[in-house]
Amino acid sequence: METVFTIDHLGIAVKSLAQAKAIYEKLGLSVSPEEVVEAEQVRLVMVPVGESRLELLEPTSENSVIAMFIAKRGEGLHHVSLRVPDLDAAVAKLKKDGVRLVSDEIKVGAGGHRYVFVHPSSASGVLLELVEAT
Amino acid sequence: METVFTIDHLGIAVKSLAQAKAIYEKLGLSVSPEEVVEAEQVRLVMVPVGESRLELLEPTSENSVIAMFIAKRGEGLHHVSLRVPDLDAAVAKLKKDGVRLVSDEIKVGAGGHRYVFVHPSSASGVLLELVEAT
Repeated sequence: METVFTIDHLGIAVKSLAQAKAIYEKLGLSVSPEEVVEAEQVRLVMVPVGESRLELLEPTSENSVIAMFIAKRGEGLHHVSLRVPDLDAAVAKLKKDGVRLVSDEIKVGAGGHRYVFVHPSSASGVLLELVEAT
Repeated sequence: METVFTIDHLGIAVKSLAQAKAIYEKLGLSVSPEEVVEAEQVRLVMVPVGESRLELLEPTSENSVIAMFIAKRGEGLHHVSLRVPDLDAAVAKLKKDGVRLVSDEIKVGAGGHRYVFVHPSSASGVLLELVEAT
């Protein structure tokens, strides 16, 4: 049977991509070129790990969600993104069960992928992103 | 080529396994039976996700590392465990490069798996476990 659930990526809030990526390069992992996502006010690199990726996120503005996270909590693990087989069905089920979502609507990100965030209050303190398997 | 690096598991510190596992069950993921690890003073369940697992960790004592983490930071993401192809080589390389490890010696856990933790100060605030691929 095909695996339908996977960890798509793990978001890590960092102050400096140059410093943050060093440990992964030392381990022999490859690191993608830097990319800026203006809408999120971040600069990021991806570190592919098996079927998943580590997403290192450096804020480009002090108003960035990532900058505010670092100011409050320090650098470190920020969110987990799970690829789910049917996002519409998952969101309908969670709403029916009273799970709190960060936004009630499924959003569409750059590249056309559809996603929603479960609020940490409904996931034991974890900011849990659900993205659609494609 | 075989994938040699994978995310082995993602450790999540929780106050209550019963509450914490609910969100994953609602998504349709399966959850392992509860298991107590006396040495770590935790009760845990595993949630397989593709080639990785989410490890939900509930403290069984207020002296548990997980209890202290929750008291200081609240529930949430605790550590990332990467499976690496050659743990001895990785540890030798990291030491040579001046990377700070939580313990200089490779430890052997229950089940015989070998592991080491990179200190968060050397991994952008991430408590990074390295385990040997078997």
